[in-house]
Amino acid sequence: MVKKEFKVNPWEVQGEVDYDRLIREFGVSKIDKKLLERIKKHTGELHFLLRRGIFFAHRDLNWILDEYEKGNKFFLYTGRAPSGPIHIGHIMVWQFTKWLQDKFGVELWFQFPDEEKFLFKKDLDFKQIDKYMHENMLDIIALGFDPKKTKFLVDTKNADIMYKPACEVAKRITFNTIKAGFGLSDSDNIGSIFYTSMQAVPAFLPSIIKGKKIPCLIPHAVDQDPHFRISRDVIPKIGYDKPASIQCVFMPPLTGTQGKMSSSEETSIFLTDSPEEVKKKINKYAFSGGQATLEEHRKLGGNPDIDVAFQFLRFMFEPDDKKLEKIEKDYQSGKLLTGELKQILIEKINAFLKEHQKKREEAKKHFDKFLFKE
Amino acid sequence: MVKKEFKVNPWEVQGEVDYDRLIREFGVSKIDKKLLERIKKHTGELHFLLRRGIFFAHRDLNWILDEYEKGNKFFLYTGRAPSGPIHIGHIMVWQFTKWLQDKFGVELWFQFPDEEKFLFKKDLDFKQIDKYMHENMLDIIALGFDPKKTKFLVDTKNADIMYKPACEVAKRITFNTIKAGFGLSDSDNIGSIFYTSMQAVPAFLPSIIKGKKIPCLIPHAVDQDPHFRISRDVIPKIGYDKPASIQCVFMPPLTGTQGKMSSSEETSIFLTDSPEEVKKKINKYAFSGGQATLEEHRKLGGNPDIDVAFQFLRFMFEPDDKKLEKIEKDYQSGKLLTGELKQILIEKINAFLKEHQKKREEAKKHFDKFLFKE
Repeated sequence: MVKKEFKVNPWEVQGEVDYDRLIREFGVSKIDKKLLERIKKHTGELHFLLRRGIFFAHRDLNWILDEYEKGNKFFLYTGRAPSGPIHIGHIMVWQFTKWLQDKFGVELWFQFPDEEKFLFKKDLDFKQIDKYMHENMLDIIALGFDPKKTKFLVDTKNADIMYKPACEVAKRITFNTIKAGFGLSDSDNIGSIFYTSMQAVPAFLPSIIKGKKIPCLIPHAVDQDPHFRISRDVIPKIGYDKPASIQCVFMPPLTGTQGKMSSSEETSIFLTDSPEEVKKKINKYAFSGGQATLEEHRKLGGNPDIDVAFQFLRFMFEPDDKKLEKIEKDYQSGKLLTGELKQILIEKINAFLKEHQKKREEAKKHFDKFLFKE
Repeated sequence: MVKKEFKVNPWEVQGEVDYDRLIREFGVSKIDKKLLERIKKHTGELHFLLRRGIFFAHRDLNWILDEYEKGNKFFLYTGRAPSGPIHIGHIMVWQFTKWLQDKFGVELWFQFPDEEKFLFKKDLDFKQIDKYMHENMLDIIALGFDPKKTKFLVDTKNADIMYKPACEVAKRITFNTIKAGFGLSDSDNIGSIFYTSMQAVPAFLPSIIKGKKIPCLIPHAVDQDPHFRISRDVIPKIGYDKPASIQCVFMPPLTGTQGKMSSSEETSIFLTDSPEEVKKKINKYAFSGGQATLEEHRKLGGNPDIDVAFQFLRFMFEPDDKKLEKIEKDYQSGKLLTGELKQILIEKINAFLKEHQKKREEAKKHFDKFLFKE
């Protein structure tokens, strides 16, 4: 079967992504069995996102573990560019990041590049972004990061420590590199052209602050790789180590298994959605791998690979491999109907959201513990 | 006589500048008699730099006076990109700025864009720049600005209040505009491409901080006009008024009346020079408008227009028009010899520097009064 064309960059994911081709084109390494075993040695168990190959690629993860085994702990760096509410597609990386924080007992630097979407989206202003950022932070705190080991960096507010190192990065990147890496052109604005310099900073800022080189591991969805590909070239020239990364595939949108979930679509499931909204969205929009009629489904069975309800269970809501396997088999055999599969997912999501929304309320009290101050 | 080609931009001034052509090309207005009279109404007297046409051009200065007359005081904005020691060519604008501050009783926001030269000069690092910046600040404080009405902004240190408004500016400037305005290319670094956004910020930052529009007047040498030409287009789109400006010609280098004095040349007179160094530099390098022999000079006289010693008196060291006129006539008639003219200048410069260096020592105690803090 000929794969269709696809597109992956920090601002756009389209089509059915061929991840093997992406690995070759981006120059990342696949996470193999040997590396999984090595991780397991430290974590005791493997997160289901590793077991299921959803975190599938990396850069320099062996070096991170070498250093860790020598007693040189890494720190984690991830982020969120606020431009809308958080949907369930966003939190997969952060849930995994929290697992890494817990298992390795390491610091997390969480960047909020509040200028990014401002610079890249024509109609968005800082007032809207500030509102979203505040809301986003509540969702992120509610995921349970350790307040003693987690620092939120807000680009415009922490620019007094970030802009100078960003200039160190920027001095070493020409516009030619930006054109090639991101496809920007002469008619793009000069803030968007400069921006990647700010995204590079958290990868070595803790090393600046602490006055010694600390290895950096960045968990992220693979579309962000172009930023770090460029910053990995530059950061050693400033005197710090290249950041390592661990990268995941995209959680599919409700409407099908192509592209990635977007917060601008009404078909996303947001962390503030009510049980009724979740039920309605899943029943109405979740792309089904089932057959057209009950009769056919019983006879031919469904296809879990393209069934979004099943994929959501696989990506996030059914961590138990055996239970997931049973659902898969029952669906394939036609024993489990599309409506029943959707019902399983709805219950799982709503149980998660109920708990999350409670923690989100509590998060309001702990806000200040997370904001980085010098 | 055919004027030679010349070049004026924020990073390069070359050749014999045709200021009338510059006025047309930059689209600034000449300061005419009527405007001088209007200024005099408020200041009582005219600064010799205005009387002598050294501050020769402006943008919207009448609007600044309209507002002032309505009781809406402007603020002054000028700056210094630290990349070396201060020479006497630098301080002309600031001495004039101090005069404006005193006569109009207004605030001055003094920008130190410490990243500018870092981004534009390959071999300069922040450690060197920090050292120069500290030294430069001492010289600037020593010029006598009112500590209650003067605020130093350091781009990288005050980026927590400057980077966000800089993004507002940057979003509205394409790389096409930067190419046309500054001649940058695809192989220039993305920090240098972004930089003008930061230079725009002090023109409206006081309005942001005080929550109301305050008119801004920028005294500067005409080579900085491209920055403000661009920011004048952008700032109204963010909701603030276009900054006005008052612009001067370049003080010539010691070695001749072309280009402008540069701190990278050993032929500049620095504010920390000793009397002996001043004497040596003037005698050795100051380009003379005198004749080749004593006999010829007595007979034909000298040409003050191209004599750098005379020009330094005119630009800075002889504020008294009558005394200056006498020196000019005596030089033209051959009564005053080149060596004697140089001696007058040497004494004037050394008297100034003696006083300045004393004030510079005192400035060390008052450093903190000038640094902007929120």
